[in-house]
Amino acid sequence: MPQAIGYAAKHSFSRLRPMTFQCDDPKAGEVEIEVLFCGVCHSDIHQAKNEWGNTVYPCMPGHEIVGRVARVGGSVTRHKVGDVVGVGCMIDSCRACEPCRAGEQQYCEGPNSWLATYNGPMVPAAKSPDGQNHYGRDNTFGGYATRIVVAEDFVLKIPAALKPEVAAPILCAGVTTYSPLRYWKVKAGDKVGVIGFGGLGDMAAKLAKAMGAEVTVFTRTEEKKKEAARLGVSCVPESDKDAMKALKNSFDFMLSTVPEKHDVNPYVQMLKRNATLAVVGALEPLAPENNMERAMHRKSVAGSLIGSIAETQEVLDFCAEHGIGPDIQVIPIQEINDAYRKVERGDVRFRYVIDIASLRAEEVEAA
Amino acid sequence: MPQAIGYAAKHSFSRLRPMTFQCDDPKAGEVEIEVLFCGVCHSDIHQAKNEWGNTVYPCMPGHEIVGRVARVGGSVTRHKVGDVVGVGCMIDSCRACEPCRAGEQQYCEGPNSWLATYNGPMVPAAKSPDGQNHYGRDNTFGGYATRIVVAEDFVLKIPAALKPEVAAPILCAGVTTYSPLRYWKVKAGDKVGVIGFGGLGDMAAKLAKAMGAEVTVFTRTEEKKKEAARLGVSCVPESDKDAMKALKNSFDFMLSTVPEKHDVNPYVQMLKRNATLAVVGALEPLAPENNMERAMHRKSVAGSLIGSIAETQEVLDFCAEHGIGPDIQVIPIQEINDAYRKVERGDVRFRYVIDIASLRAEEVEAA
Repeated sequence: MPQAIGYAAKHSFSRLRPMTFQCDDPKAGEVEIEVLFCGVCHSDIHQAKNEWGNTVYPCMPGHEIVGRVARVGGSVTRHKVGDVVGVGCMIDSCRACEPCRAGEQQYCEGPNSWLATYNGPMVPAAKSPDGQNHYGRDNTFGGYATRIVVAEDFVLKIPAALKPEVAAPILCAGVTTYSPLRYWKVKAGDKVGVIGFGGLGDMAAKLAKAMGAEVTVFTRTEEKKKEAARLGVSCVPESDKDAMKALKNSFDFMLSTVPEKHDVNPYVQMLKRNATLAVVGALEPLAPENNMERAMHRKSVAGSLIGSIAETQEVLDFCAEHGIGPDIQVIPIQEINDAYRKVERGDVRFRYVIDIASLRAEEVEAA
Repeated sequence: MPQAIGYAAKHSFSRLRPMTFQCDDPKAGEVEIEVLFCGVCHSDIHQAKNEWGNTVYPCMPGHEIVGRVARVGGSVTRHKVGDVVGVGCMIDSCRACEPCRAGEQQYCEGPNSWLATYNGPMVPAAKSPDGQNHYGRDNTFGGYATRIVVAEDFVLKIPAALKPEVAAPILCAGVTTYSPLRYWKVKAGDKVGVIGFGGLGDMAAKLAKAMGAEVTVFTRTEEKKKEAARLGVSCVPESDKDAMKALKNSFDFMLSTVPEKHDVNPYVQMLKRNATLAVVGALEPLAPENNMERAMHRKSVAGSLIGSIAETQEVLDFCAEHGIGPDIQVIPIQEINDAYRKVERGDVRFRYVIDIASLRAEEVEAA
C-alpha cells in the first residue's frame, strides 16, 4: 500500500494543506494512476468550504484528473501501464439501476448514487435506505494528490492529440457543457446562448461553435469582449439592456454556467418558443422564476449534471478532433489557496490546472 | 348595432356590476353569438382585480363561452345561424408569425400578440414596436355578457354529446390542461401527477386518466380524497410527508394547476429522470426553484399557456368521445361576486358556470 500525498481542507474555514495518506493497491478491475495534472473546478471550492452542506473532512478535491497508469489490478483489459488516462467526477456507480443500465451513471439511482471522485459517495450510507454503503468507502480523495485508484470502466482514454494539462478540465467543465448541448440536440445553424464566461462558459462556447452553432456569450462586464471575439463568438454584457432586449425570443438553446445563485428570467425571455435553458453551474435555489415568461412561449428551465462516462470519452475525442480545449493556466499546487480566491472573485476565464509534479516534490521531501 | 349587457369591474377594488354596451354587427368572416353559458376562471378574478398589472377598465371577464350563432357576417362558411358554438381565451391572432402559421395562435408573436377574448389585445398598442394596434381594439369584452362577435376561425363547434354548460369550462380549463398533456406526450401507462385539484386540476385528472395514465392528484387537505376516489385517481394531501417522500423519482409528467405563487421543489423531486413539470396555473414568479433537484436527474420545469384553436376543438371532441367534462355548478350572474370569493378561498373543486339567461332577464329590464 503506497503512501501518497495530497492537498486537503480539514474544516470549512481552513486553507488546503498537504496531507499524507495510504493509497489502496489496485484490486481486480482497478487501475492505479500517477496523477500528472488536475484541473481546479468551482465545485472544488464549494465542497472544500461545505457550501452544499454535505462535505466530509478531510476534503481532498480534484475531479479533472489526467495521469499515467502506474499499475493495474487483475482482469483489467481497457488500460495498460504507461497509458495516459483521465478521471472525471465519478469513479463508480451502482451499475444496476435503470440510468446505469442506460449508460447514464451521473443519474445513478442506486442506494448511494454514484461514487464521487472526492467526498463520495454522493448519498452516504446513513442516508441510504438500508444504512449500508454499497461502495464501502465514506470519503473518497480526489486528484489534488500524487496517485488515485479507480475502477477501469470509469477511466477515460486521453487522445494523443490533447496535451494532458489541456485534457484535464475537459473531464468536468467539458462534459458538463457537452452533455446538455447533445441532449438538447444543438445542431449547425442553431443560435446558442451561453451565460457566464468562466471555465465552463469558455468550454460551452467552444463546443457549441464546433457543433456549428451561432454562439452568444453573456458576461457581467465588457472586459471579456476581446476574449469572445478571439473565439469567434458574440458577447453581450448583461449591463447592455438594449442588446439584451433585442435578443428576445431568439435562442434555440441556452446554457447557464454561472456557478452561484442568479436570475435566469432575463434569459428565459430570450428563448424561442418551446426552447430550453439548462442550468449547469448553480446547484442551489435560484432567484424566483417568473412562470409568465415560461408559459408565454412554452419555455423550459432544466438542470443537467456533468455527463455520462460515454459522453466524457466523446467530448475528449470531439475536442481532439476539432482542435479545441480549455484556456488554462498551469500552477504549482502551493498556489492553490490563492487560485481559489481568484476563482471565487469570478474574474478568471481560463481554467487553473495544477501541475502535480509540484506535489510530487513535497512527497519526496515528506518521505 | 345591438345593445348588449354584461357584468364588469370598473376598478381593481370594485365588485362586478351590470353595464350596457354597444355590440358591433358581425363583419365579413365574423359571427355574432348569443351567449348561453360562461364559465368562471380564476384568471377572470386575477384580471378583474388587476393582479397581473395589465388590466384595462371597465373589465368584462369571461372566456369559457358557449352560445348560439345569432347572425353571420359575409363569407362565413364554418358556422351557421342556430349552431351551438364555443369561444375560449382567444378571438383572433396576427395569423402571420411563425407560431400562427404553425397553428399555435396562443404563442402569437405578432405586434399585439393574440387578441384576448376580454382585456385584449395581449400586447397593447403602446407596447408594440410600431405603436399601432393590429386589431383596432383596445379593450375587448368577454362572455359575462349577452352577446359577443368573434372571427369564425376562432369559434369552436360544440359536439352534440356535450351539454352547453358542461362544454363551457373545457374552452379554457380543458384546453389549458389538455395541451401540455399532449405536448409532453402523455400516454397509456404513464404516471401523471396533478398538483392542485380545483377547476383545472379536475379537468387535468380526468383527461390524463382518459388518456390511459395512472393519475395522482396532490391537494392541500384531506377533504378532497373522496372526490379523487370517485374519479378513480389517487390523492395525496401535501401534508402527508411520508407519502410525498415515497413518490420520489416516480412520475413521467406532472402538471401544476395551482393558480398562485407556490413551491414546486417537492414535486420536482417526484419527477423521473428527464421528466417535466409544467406549470399552467400560476403566471407569476414562483418560490425559488432549487436547481440541485433539477440537475440531479436532468429534470425540467416548463410553462404552458392555454392551447391552440385546433387543440381546443380536439379537447371538446375528446371529452365528448370519452364522456368526460368538468364538474360544474350553474349560478345566475347575480351571484358572481360571491362565487369569486369562494374561488379565491380555493375550496371550490367544481367550476362555476354562469347561466346567461339570468343576465338576459336584466337586459330586458334595462331596455
